[in-house]
Amino acid sequence: MKYSSIPSAQTVVHHCKANNIKNIVISPGSRNAPLTIGFTKDSFFRCFSIVDERCAGFFALGMSQNIQEPVILVCTSGSALLNYYPAIAEAFYSDIPLVVISADRPNHKIDIGDGQTIRQENVFQNHIGYSANLKLDILHATEKLKKENNALFSNLENSLAGQEQVQSYNDNELNRALNIAIGDNSPVHINVPFEEPLYDLVENSTVTPLVVLREIGKKTVETDFKEYAQIWNSSVKKMVLVGASPPNSMEQQFLDELAEDTSLLIFTETTSNLHHPNLFPSIDSIIAPIEKSSEKEKLFKELQPDILLTFGGLIVSKKIKAFLRRYKPKNHWHVGTKKAYNTFFSLTHHFKMDVNSFFNSFLDVAHSMDSEYLEHWLEIKKKYVARRSEYLSKIPFSDLFVFNDLIKCIPNGYQVQLANSSTVRYTQLFDFKSSLHVFCNRGTSGIDGSTSTAIGSSIYNEAPTLLITGDLSFFYDSNGLWNNYILPTFRILLINNEGGGIFRILPGKEDTEEYRNYFETSHKLNASHLAKMYGFEYILAWDDNSLNTALSTFYEKSSSPKLLEIKTPRLLNDKILLSYFDFIS
Amino acid sequence: MKYSSIPSAQTVVHHCKANNIKNIVISPGSRNAPLTIGFTKDSFFRCFSIVDERCAGFFALGMSQNIQEPVILVCTSGSALLNYYPAIAEAFYSDIPLVVISADRPNHKIDIGDGQTIRQENVFQNHIGYSANLKLDILHATEKLKKENNALFSNLENSLAGQEQVQSYNDNELNRALNIAIGDNSPVHINVPFEEPLYDLVENSTVTPLVVLREIGKKTVETDFKEYAQIWNSSVKKMVLVGASPPNSMEQQFLDELAEDTSLLIFTETTSNLHHPNLFPSIDSIIAPIEKSSEKEKLFKELQPDILLTFGGLIVSKKIKAFLRRYKPKNHWHVGTKKAYNTFFSLTHHFKMDVNSFFNSFLDVAHSMDSEYLEHWLEIKKKYVARRSEYLSKIPFSDLFVFNDLIKCIPNGYQVQLANSSTVRYTQLFDFKSSLHVFCNRGTSGIDGSTSTAIGSSIYNEAPTLLITGDLSFFYDSNGLWNNYILPTFRILLINNEGGGIFRILPGKEDTEEYRNYFETSHKLNASHLAKMYGFEYILAWDDNSLNTALSTFYEKSSSPKLLEIKTPRLLNDKILLSYFDFIS
Repeated sequence: MKYSSIPSAQTVVHHCKANNIKNIVISPGSRNAPLTIGFTKDSFFRCFSIVDERCAGFFALGMSQNIQEPVILVCTSGSALLNYYPAIAEAFYSDIPLVVISADRPNHKIDIGDGQTIRQENVFQNHIGYSANLKLDILHATEKLKKENNALFSNLENSLAGQEQVQSYNDNELNRALNIAIGDNSPVHINVPFEEPLYDLVENSTVTPLVVLREIGKKTVETDFKEYAQIWNSSVKKMVLVGASPPNSMEQQFLDELAEDTSLLIFTETTSNLHHPNLFPSIDSIIAPIEKSSEKEKLFKELQPDILLTFGGLIVSKKIKAFLRRYKPKNHWHVGTKKAYNTFFSLTHHFKMDVNSFFNSFLDVAHSMDSEYLEHWLEIKKKYVARRSEYLSKIPFSDLFVFNDLIKCIPNGYQVQLANSSTVRYTQLFDFKSSLHVFCNRGTSGIDGSTSTAIGSSIYNEAPTLLITGDLSFFYDSNGLWNNYILPTFRILLINNEGGGIFRILPGKEDTEEYRNYFETSHKLNASHLAKMYGFEYILAWDDNSLNTALSTFYEKSSSPKLLEIKTPRLLNDKILLSYFDFIS
Repeated sequence: MKYSSIPSAQTVVHHCKANNIKNIVISPGSRNAPLTIGFTKDSFFRCFSIVDERCAGFFALGMSQNIQEPVILVCTSGSALLNYYPAIAEAFYSDIPLVVISADRPNHKIDIGDGQTIRQENVFQNHIGYSANLKLDILHATEKLKKENNALFSNLENSLAGQEQVQSYNDNELNRALNIAIGDNSPVHINVPFEEPLYDLVENSTVTPLVVLREIGKKTVETDFKEYAQIWNSSVKKMVLVGASPPNSMEQQFLDELAEDTSLLIFTETTSNLHHPNLFPSIDSIIAPIEKSSEKEKLFKELQPDILLTFGGLIVSKKIKAFLRRYKPKNHWHVGTKKAYNTFFSLTHHFKMDVNSFFNSFLDVAHSMDSEYLEHWLEIKKKYVARRSEYLSKIPFSDLFVFNDLIKCIPNGYQVQLANSSTVRYTQLFDFKSSLHVFCNRGTSGIDGSTSTAIGSSIYNEAPTLLITGDLSFFYDSNGLWNNYILPTFRILLINNEGGGIFRILPGKEDTEEYRNYFETSHKLNASHLAKMYGFEYILAWDDNSLNTALSTFYEKSSSPKLLEIKTPRLLNDKILLSYFDFIS
């Protein structure tokens, strides 16, 4: 096997391998050649090549989310690195261990007018678990320093001792960064300065890095569950609210037990991947009718829980947030290993543990209680479910109509990736089959990167992956299709309502040109050209019939991935959605 | 006229107008509605709508570069803002006054799990002239605070006095930010937290902001030119090196006077926009033959100047950098109002003034000198120009061949935008007509954003704009074409060599699959689909004949913009370029 001749490049690769990180997403460049050489020459690693760093970032994010392991990003110096930032922020808020490794110029070449050179150190400091700024290999850089800058060189007299210090410093920084990525599921940034020559190879590794792996044992947290169980056991109105969670992250036995407690409502988001007949998976269908009721105050007080227990990631539903901020629970407990957000300004305790450990202990001391709370709201749920069916049977072809159709037809077992923001909001109104695995980038809830994320997450997934996306999100990440890793089983459902349809639903909309241009940003684009360019089979649907025809074969095996574009009526969609909430009220 | 009901939104818009900043590039969103409303309702402003913030950033950058005024970017909260970063870094190093205004959530809604919410304050701190973090309007937010968070609300008892403080704080921050943008030609970031309701309007402005405009007078810098003239006048080998400079930034009379001094060599880059028969516009054609010569040491010493005088922006040529770092001048003086980079580790003085003021004073006391320096190197230049012609007449269809053809055919007066990195490097080998205005994003020298920059720069330019780009750069910024502002006169020349051709030229290339995938990143894409999608007339050339035919009508008037894609042989290009340097040696 061959190695880059540069010691720090060897060291970085060695640390990644020792930490068993196998997947590397590389964007092209020259400064990063020592890393590219290091990773691609070792068959331990699987390398992916993606040119646009913004897409590379989200591709790695999707993959990491799927395999629940760190994924490495490698890029050259300069603005290349900055294009990762949207994916890094998403990873930061969604607890995904992206390991960004950027090549850099030596420190003394920064801000002196060299090309592709910016201030890379700590550049992501607002949203990063750790920034490791490695040091330049002194021995390697000696030749160049002599030629270019004698003054600097003459300071490096004891270069051998200096090199030992560099090695030790770099080992420490790498240990810290990778321990944080792996231990905290956090993105980290490792910046590595290189001096020319960048492409030289050696037959044998010239470094013996000191790798310190983090002990991964569950921390035993001493929690007096009894104290909390007392509060729990004396409360007649309890609410559990579950945000984004990977499939199977909660044992079904715990959920079943909770779901039978008549003093407990379990509100779940589509991205929670939880299923039980007693759950309330369409939160807004409960809240919206109350908002419209003349007895709003009374009904909200009836719904107001004494205890709110939350777990999982960020919550999509704005209505539940507004409700719980106004009608605060006496206690809000959050369960999770990392952060506890005070989303409702009423957080009283954070159980810093994983959800299964929590229920395993807590359900020993907590017990269910007879209450009319659950029954009452299940009645209401039953009503809106019936009303929803009635409404859906009557409405014309539109976003709401289409989502109803699409969600019913997804084959069992699929991984479903949802784009922001209309898409995930519409899907929240429907029930998903329990065999589906649902994901959405809700860390920053951006419209950027959904396609790249979905493709990245499909690479190792056993079942096929389906992306459901809106037009702005899809065109925003059109470069997501520019890679050689799209599986023929990959499917895209694109709901094209010719603009940011969500803006028509918000208050304050006006039917002016100004509004169309700067909020809705209406357009006439379609995806047929991109489909052709990137080798997708393209199908177009524009009404009930064409949609049914398209869906009847859409999931059949094919030699190419497929994209089904569904055109919906821009000016009708918002009215039909808003009337839905009126109808079920 | 109507205004947003939110005082701080009114204040921001007021400051921009008072500073005479007219152009606003808006990306869609809801949190930024108060700003969007403010700018679009006032006909003083011209607003542009661009969905992809990465493209919006570069579009604004191109426009600002062209009109030499600040341009404003407006986006919503969350990752939207991060997508500006590549353009901001470019603006930072190219001294372009981008004014980024981001909408944000109120401080107490950050990191509590709200959607599209990140840590926006100071997020660009590594590459920004100023970060103004405005404060939330207390009176406006009162209602919401009461509902959601009584604890916080109860701290705001003296809300009227509080609001006055907010107004004064925000005025100060806005004055500081805009003064820095305008005075220092620097990008700045203004972060503005807003609370709902976001869409309400009022008939009359409710604020009276205090705007302090910066006095823009030239600072009188006391410089004793005589001292420097003495050094200058006693030096027999002087070199002027000019980087990126806007057209007409140096008065021709000064250039003419310098160009006749026989003790002076003037090395210019294509982006310097300087023209005179005695200049050396193809730097690498001078340096490369010396590098290959057996008398390298002797020749470099002959070329080594006593004094190096630089002005303009960053230098593209790696060869001149390597030469001057190795063969340092005794004195390196830089002329410019802002920064002086110590690019060659030998900077001895910075004349902090604009180049015309400098020469106006300096040429009074400096005088030319008889020397063989200029004559000698003009002889060498004459030789390589002849050799170049000979070489170009013999080579087959390839990148070098194509650039020669393309550059000759650009009509007089065009604005030419060059992409990074092969494109600008190839063009450096040829002479441009003096009527052409040439630009390239050399601040960070990224391949990102070239297309968006070119389109932005075309909006107000009197003459038509031509973008010359390579395939990786073009596909990277494919979303640059997604806007409604592309003029029918706009032209794109796309040289498609199916990958990052520049990597084949660098040392260390190998003909392995690894190399093709991770360095060159070869692909089979063409631009026909994107051209169709975005309404470009598309022409394809693949050899001498088809190129001539295409170019014969390419610049004719048309109702749509045009894209000419030229396919060149991936495996031949590098050999022909490298042999060129052998041939002229």
